Amino acid sequence: MSAISFNVIATDGAARAGTLTTPHGSVPTPCFMAVATLGGFKGVTVQQAEDLGQGIMLSNTYHLALRPGPERVRKLGGLHAFTGWRGPMLTDSGGYQVFSLAANRKITDEGVWFRSHLDGTAFNLTPEESIRIQRLLGADIIMAFDECPAADAERSAIEACNRRTAAWLERSVRAWRAPDLPGGANEQALYPIVQGGLHRDLREASLADAVRHELPGTALGGLAVGESFADRLQVLDWMCPHLPSAKPRYLMGVGTPLDLVEAVSRGIDQFDCVLPTRMGRHGTAYTDNGPMRVKRLEYAEDPRPVDPDTPSQASRVSRAYIQHLLKSGEILGGQLLSLHNLAYYQRLMARMRAAIVAGTFTEFADKFRASYVDAPAEAESSESTKIGKRASNDDG
Amino acid sequence: MSAISFNVIATDGAARAGTLTTPHGSVPTPCFMAVATLGGFKGVTVQQAEDLGQGIMLSNTYHLALRPGPERVRKLGGLHAFTGWRGPMLTDSGGYQVFSLAANRKITDEGVWFRSHLDGTAFNLTPEESIRIQRLLGADIIMAFDECPAADAERSAIEACNRRTAAWLERSVRAWRAPDLPGGANEQALYPIVQGGLHRDLREASLADAVRHELPGTALGGLAVGESFADRLQVLDWMCPHLPSAKPRYLMGVGTPLDLVEAVSRGIDQFDCVLPTRMGRHGTAYTDNGPMRVKRLEYAEDPRPVDPDTPSQASRVSRAYIQHLLKSGEILGGQLLSLHNLAYYQRLMARMRAAIVAGTFTEFADKFRASYVDAPAEAESSESTKIGKRASNDDG
Repeated sequence: MSAISFNVIATDGAARAGTLTTPHGSVPTPCFMAVATLGGFKGVTVQQAEDLGQGIMLSNTYHLALRPGPERVRKLGGLHAFTGWRGPMLTDSGGYQVFSLAANRKITDEGVWFRSHLDGTAFNLTPEESIRIQRLLGADIIMAFDECPAADAERSAIEACNRRTAAWLERSVRAWRAPDLPGGANEQALYPIVQGGLHRDLREASLADAVRHELPGTALGGLAVGESFADRLQVLDWMCPHLPSAKPRYLMGVGTPLDLVEAVSRGIDQFDCVLPTRMGRHGTAYTDNGPMRVKRLEYAEDPRPVDPDTPSQASRVSRAYIQHLLKSGEILGGQLLSLHNLAYYQRLMARMRAAIVAGTFTEFADKFRASYVDAPAEAESSESTKIGKRASNDDG
Repeated sequence: MSAISFNVIATDGAARAGTLTTPHGSVPTPCFMAVATLGGFKGVTVQQAEDLGQGIMLSNTYHLALRPGPERVRKLGGLHAFTGWRGPMLTDSGGYQVFSLAANRKITDEGVWFRSHLDGTAFNLTPEESIRIQRLLGADIIMAFDECPAADAERSAIEACNRRTAAWLERSVRAWRAPDLPGGANEQALYPIVQGGLHRDLREASLADAVRHELPGTALGGLAVGESFADRLQVLDWMCPHLPSAKPRYLMGVGTPLDLVEAVSRGIDQFDCVLPTRMGRHGTAYTDNGPMRVKRLEYAEDPRPVDPDTPSQASRVSRAYIQHLLKSGEILGGQLLSLHNLAYYQRLMARMRAAIVAGTFTEFADKFRASYVDAPAEAESSESTKIGKRASNDDG
């Protein structure tokens, strides 16, 4: 018996509306999972996240393993008790850090040796160790330990990733089923991660490896790692029709609001991304018209809330006020935009779900694509560079 | 007719419980006013501050004049509309910056020339300009422009401060009564500020200057500027019996929880201080047992909330968790402690008020003095140094 259950209640084209039930409650899907790398949303309390309707908290095994360590979290009652988050929770396996911390790790068939990004000490992650940590942390959904390649990796390197990802999945499943630790198969759902880069045959081979284990969900990894928007959609077009339809489908680390609309239209159910809080901290509000850089001169005396259509604690104040806080270096500015962005993402998911249920998702998506304008190329590329640098710290 | 009214509903010894009514609502006194230097509480949204029962927001004329400027705030509807704060509000006059930014200003009888702490540009504050700015900002209570001397100033320098403070009070009152600007005497209460350093006769002379104008409240300034705890209490012992009893008495910039208990016991009604948010951001929680440095090793696995007796968003998590956030450099740690500290200060004021009404204030204060232990001398002095450095930036 699986620790989670999933029901699709409506479809519209390939898009699905459903309910994901975990030991810590149910969430409507498609759902966006806000990132709490170290066990806390950046700049946002769990109370605020709950008030905004956040459904699932996502934390990171690699970071929590280094600090404060899984034994301490376990001693303090597990990640739910530790963080105060009462709802469903997912932990990543550390496989993404194989990519994002590429400069500080060495891979063998056994596992990965990291040099800690904190103090340089050596730290070993294997499938067994990743699952052991995730069992001690106690999230409702845990992830198999995989090897995530870069978007521009050679085909041969991606083949090697696939081999390791398949072998590590076997070992992850065994460690998840082993009876000698807290948590595990009866209390936690394990998802396999499909890799394969931008190669259709390698993606399909990785999926075949994944589905063999009949796990409670399926994750697509190795996207949002530097590939183009078009390449990302191409992979979704190849893969979505073949992902097990009775189980939740999780697209890891994606993405912008437009990414979410495109992926939902292709049948994805779960998402996570650092963008809402990271971009909020750095002065950007997401809206149906695209990202709004609140520091721009045109908003200096703008009395409107950043997004009149999305209620949040940021709705009580003006663009001018938030700009004032941002320009003054007050963290409250970034907090308010993080709250807005989380509210916006939640509302976007809720609107997509309602459209799927009503059978109007195609219209919704078309309208969204028409209204959502990404930032001008110049600003965007400079932002991407900054984001890239920050992403290398790999911290929500 | 005054813009505010004040009713003492109970006394217990010199301590007073009352109600202060302003154009933006009533607050029970004694009351603590949380500091929002630039128009935002640091790390705390107005919604959170309201939920914690904060009564009055305090902002700073000097800082808001430099950025975003009073004309812009006015254009956006005044400080209430600008910040989203619906309750009573007080603005300081900039007189405190005469002390705190002493390295960057020049005083004449006309007023004070500052070099902006932001970009070095010259900025002039006179009584007329301070009141003009405060009228544009639109707080319920505004402060006369004064000259605040350092605790260790020569007697002759303090005499000169008194002369200027008296002359500037005259000019502040005139500017407050002038009909040609928004706000002013019909909508805003002006408080005079009593200076005089640690000299009883100079304090009494300054008070005599202040009361002559029959303004709606009285403020004691020039404390918490480097004098000892004993000296501070000495000044309160001299002055409190002579402060007009029918009007609210405001002790500016003070202080620690113990300071508040001592001052309430002597008849003070209003307080403001940056300590709850500043110390929270830097890892300290206030409790009835004194300040708790949450990063201390002994709390690394402590499952209790920082203060089991004070409900706030921080009560949902453990000391161990907040220590983890602080050690990881997550701003959420400082946010949670700021929320706790504001909740603690509010609760302390409410407990004092209840004790005054019940006629048990002496017992409450004695019990508090016995339980409240300040940090060990070593830690305290290093903290004081740091706080002193931060205070010189003079920013909540």
